[in-house]
Amino acid sequence: MTLTTTTTTTTGTVATTHVTAARRPWQDVVAEKRQAQADAIAAYVSKGHVVSDPAIVDEPDITLLAASMARGDVSAQDVTAAYIERCLAVHKKTNCLTEILFEGAMNRARQLDTHLAEHGTPVGPLHGVPMTLKDQFDVCGFDSTLGYVGRANHPALENCVLVSLLENLGAIIIAKTNLPQSIMWCETDNPLWGRTTHPLDDRYTPGGSTGGESALLSERGSTVGWGTDIGGSIRGPAHMLGLYGLKPSSARLPYTGVAVSTEGQEHVPSSAGPLARSLVSIQQVMQLLADQKPWTVDARCAPLPWRHDLYDGTLSRPLTVGVLWDDEVVRPHPPLTRVLQNTVDLLRKAGHDVFDWDPVLHPKLVALQDEYYMADGGEDIRRDVAAGGEPMIPHVAMLVERGPAISVYDYWQLNRRKWALQQAYLKQWNTVTSPNTGRTADILLLPPMPHTAVPHGGCRWVGYTKVWNMLDYPALVLPAGCIKAEDCTAEWPLKARNEADAWNAKVWSDNKEDMLGLGLPVGLQVVGRKLEEETVLAGAKIIDDLVKAAEK
Amino acid sequence: MTLTTTTTTTTGTVATTHVTAARRPWQDVVAEKRQAQADAIAAYVSKGHVVSDPAIVDEPDITLLAASMARGDVSAQDVTAAYIERCLAVHKKTNCLTEILFEGAMNRARQLDTHLAEHGTPVGPLHGVPMTLKDQFDVCGFDSTLGYVGRANHPALENCVLVSLLENLGAIIIAKTNLPQSIMWCETDNPLWGRTTHPLDDRYTPGGSTGGESALLSERGSTVGWGTDIGGSIRGPAHMLGLYGLKPSSARLPYTGVAVSTEGQEHVPSSAGPLARSLVSIQQVMQLLADQKPWTVDARCAPLPWRHDLYDGTLSRPLTVGVLWDDEVVRPHPPLTRVLQNTVDLLRKAGHDVFDWDPVLHPKLVALQDEYYMADGGEDIRRDVAAGGEPMIPHVAMLVERGPAISVYDYWQLNRRKWALQQAYLKQWNTVTSPNTGRTADILLLPPMPHTAVPHGGCRWVGYTKVWNMLDYPALVLPAGCIKAEDCTAEWPLKARNEADAWNAKVWSDNKEDMLGLGLPVGLQVVGRKLEEETVLAGAKIIDDLVKAAEK
Repeated sequence: MTLTTTTTTTTGTVATTHVTAARRPWQDVVAEKRQAQADAIAAYVSKGHVVSDPAIVDEPDITLLAASMARGDVSAQDVTAAYIERCLAVHKKTNCLTEILFEGAMNRARQLDTHLAEHGTPVGPLHGVPMTLKDQFDVCGFDSTLGYVGRANHPALENCVLVSLLENLGAIIIAKTNLPQSIMWCETDNPLWGRTTHPLDDRYTPGGSTGGESALLSERGSTVGWGTDIGGSIRGPAHMLGLYGLKPSSARLPYTGVAVSTEGQEHVPSSAGPLARSLVSIQQVMQLLADQKPWTVDARCAPLPWRHDLYDGTLSRPLTVGVLWDDEVVRPHPPLTRVLQNTVDLLRKAGHDVFDWDPVLHPKLVALQDEYYMADGGEDIRRDVAAGGEPMIPHVAMLVERGPAISVYDYWQLNRRKWALQQAYLKQWNTVTSPNTGRTADILLLPPMPHTAVPHGGCRWVGYTKVWNMLDYPALVLPAGCIKAEDCTAEWPLKARNEADAWNAKVWSDNKEDMLGLGLPVGLQVVGRKLEEETVLAGAKIIDDLVKAAEK
Repeated sequence: MTLTTTTTTTTGTVATTHVTAARRPWQDVVAEKRQAQADAIAAYVSKGHVVSDPAIVDEPDITLLAASMARGDVSAQDVTAAYIERCLAVHKKTNCLTEILFEGAMNRARQLDTHLAEHGTPVGPLHGVPMTLKDQFDVCGFDSTLGYVGRANHPALENCVLVSLLENLGAIIIAKTNLPQSIMWCETDNPLWGRTTHPLDDRYTPGGSTGGESALLSERGSTVGWGTDIGGSIRGPAHMLGLYGLKPSSARLPYTGVAVSTEGQEHVPSSAGPLARSLVSIQQVMQLLADQKPWTVDARCAPLPWRHDLYDGTLSRPLTVGVLWDDEVVRPHPPLTRVLQNTVDLLRKAGHDVFDWDPVLHPKLVALQDEYYMADGGEDIRRDVAAGGEPMIPHVAMLVERGPAISVYDYWQLNRRKWALQQAYLKQWNTVTSPNTGRTADILLLPPMPHTAVPHGGCRWVGYTKVWNMLDYPALVLPAGCIKAEDCTAEWPLKARNEADAWNAKVWSDNKEDMLGLGLPVGLQVVGRKLEEETVLAGAKIIDDLVKAAEK
């Protein structure tokens, strides 16, 4: 008999850890969930949906895709079926999917087609656009497992706010995707769904925690994938797979109905955000969501409409860019530094102003952030794992053993240090000016990670992404190149700064030839002031256009 | 020897509790601080500043006052001297002041006069307007004692952000004012500065925790007083003294450099906000501060300019008002209900729509809030009191004995309940519509407290104000009448609902004749959606205009 306390997080009650009497073996739950997944796939396949044109999935721009459906050039059913077929192929290769929403997606596509036929107009600006969700976003009738066995078979009672808004816009949710046990890891593996692999090489990780999405998107299995990011969980996977990924400030997009590990630890906030195969898809979905006034339906959102003045203003004048080459803890591998240098050269040539940015506050931010993550002594994660009975994966076992819980009083002192550091970083932004122009930075530009995609277990240091969660600044990753032969012969210092740096150096020397053979993508990270997503998106557009033009 | 760890909160370091070896008796520190206050007053008085026109202080509108100085009708020195003289008189009567900033204020007034004479223009829109601060706001060179002995003689190293912005606008800070030990109380008393009394009767409290400001403002000793509010600390004193007081949402105004009790407990957020003698003063100072872009200098502020569309739009159409008559825990005294009824009648007569609002979620909000306040088992307050060695006042002693600290894990569960309740309240606001028009509420209207000003020790229940801190909604108090003879004969139910209701009933029956004799003011509370200060201010203006017109 399983006794569960209540489940919904949107109606005044709260999901609490499931208390299980005479619990079933966790392996049984895993087998059952995986069988249910296989059955849902088989049921869909048995219907024999015909894909009119597999090349439908090649269009990365959601506005063009939606426009083609709005004109009737292609039906929503055709688009959905093409994406589902692609999903299945990528899943077979990478094990990226969790919950299968294909039947509902096809039904909705049919409704959209009927609507268009009857009214002559699409239901919204994202009419028929297929999207996917990391397995944290509640969809009515489906689990949000977070990769925990104990959360299996507790389907959500309603859609999360974000899904409601996306559906208002016309989008179709086709599947949910994999993530790591605890979510607090930059790779993707859990006992419930297993490990997700890199599409180019199954010995490699697609990153994490939003690794199911990155694997799927990089192989054109979705248009926009929704993830969460509390330390780089959107940006790391986007970087590793050559995608665009935005972590907004936490108050920008709705989070209600999104279950998360260490829920209630909101002081290093987790943000919901999109990954996509084109920058315009990210920009459009952010603008369309802002236009939906999420703050009127989600208590956590700030009342910020899409600010055309910020976006257009940034596009209309030379950028001032602070460049952070190296966080002085872990050196980026040579391809990261080369791609950043190339981009800086392109920016300068195009008349933008670039100056060096000092990571002086970053070690303090990182150290404090680690104290937050484990302030409960790992109790939250331990409870979630214990509820299902499955083993901890090694990374999580290490995580929960880091130390005992601190007191609430000491926790409050962390918050005081946080505000002081946030204020100090703001002061740095306000006072450090470009020696060329005397202007403060519009955006910062830096590596997303100290490495490209790496073999499973190769991720260690997420200091390049996590500081922006601590500061709650918007940060976007965009692809800007690939590993090249010259990187493998580039000078690389022999002396490591510390253990993490030594680890990272070894990852490079052990794997660089393989990485080169795979042609792994290299991203850049663009960071803006808190809640200035418009500036970040405009700055990224300038960079993206320059990089693309140079590639031609 | 006194060992102190560091003091500033604005530069990346944090004030920690002072560790005192071989501590001096607390009474010595008190005597020294009070003597220093007396000396500062005597030094000012000895200079013999002449007040050209004591009636200067009669103008409650800061825009008119600033305009008269900008035109040169009156000098900033004349205005400052007139306000200081008034301060001294009110302080003598009520014991409302703590730190004395008179000399600096006069110097600054002189600079402003010189500037005007030299340039022909004021330094800013608040040129020469004298303001006061609750003794939490850092002013360089002066203590922010919070009423704690242990914080005496640790002068701030720089101005808090709010003071910097106010000075940019031309304002002059003339004094700091009293507050209760712990700040977590709706009256004003501490062992360091003593008790502040109601100007009309020293047996009565001016409310709290911003009671020094309310006493001072009600007697025209300041134009705008700055307070903080985590449960009603701006609104209660404003209501009791016939003033206007706004608690904005916490991300609207800068809080950096404002020390507070239980600092780091930011989950029921404390807000900084203004009290004033006219609504236009509140509205103007909010608009002027928003125009200063506080988010560019304070990491906690949301990037929200003054939104003319919200303010003007609300003024331009009939209001939809949800009225909460009674929170169903503690019945408001008859004058509160009568004044609310009168106002509802005026609104209806003027064509506005009014419907009843259900406080169904309020008990849960209040209960959760109490868990937050004491989640550390009183450790923060205990440490601050222990640092100075003074006794706890009875209210604080009760507060810190409420129960043991909870774990960080359980604390995170409070946050989950908080978000669920915030989401539930938002849902209520979105779905409960007026039966007359089918529209949702622009604002809510309710009593600020279940009573007017009361004798010292008479305050018990702040449920009418505190729920809006838990929800982080903006809430404004405005004066709307006074106790009348008919209130004293109004029907009053014999049966109490609970202990707090019984207490409140006894406060009424024991004191109503006295209260009538004093002609105590009665306020109303206007509440809006999170971060919609503009809507609240516009709604309050409609009500204020109607009330004033009816009084004529």
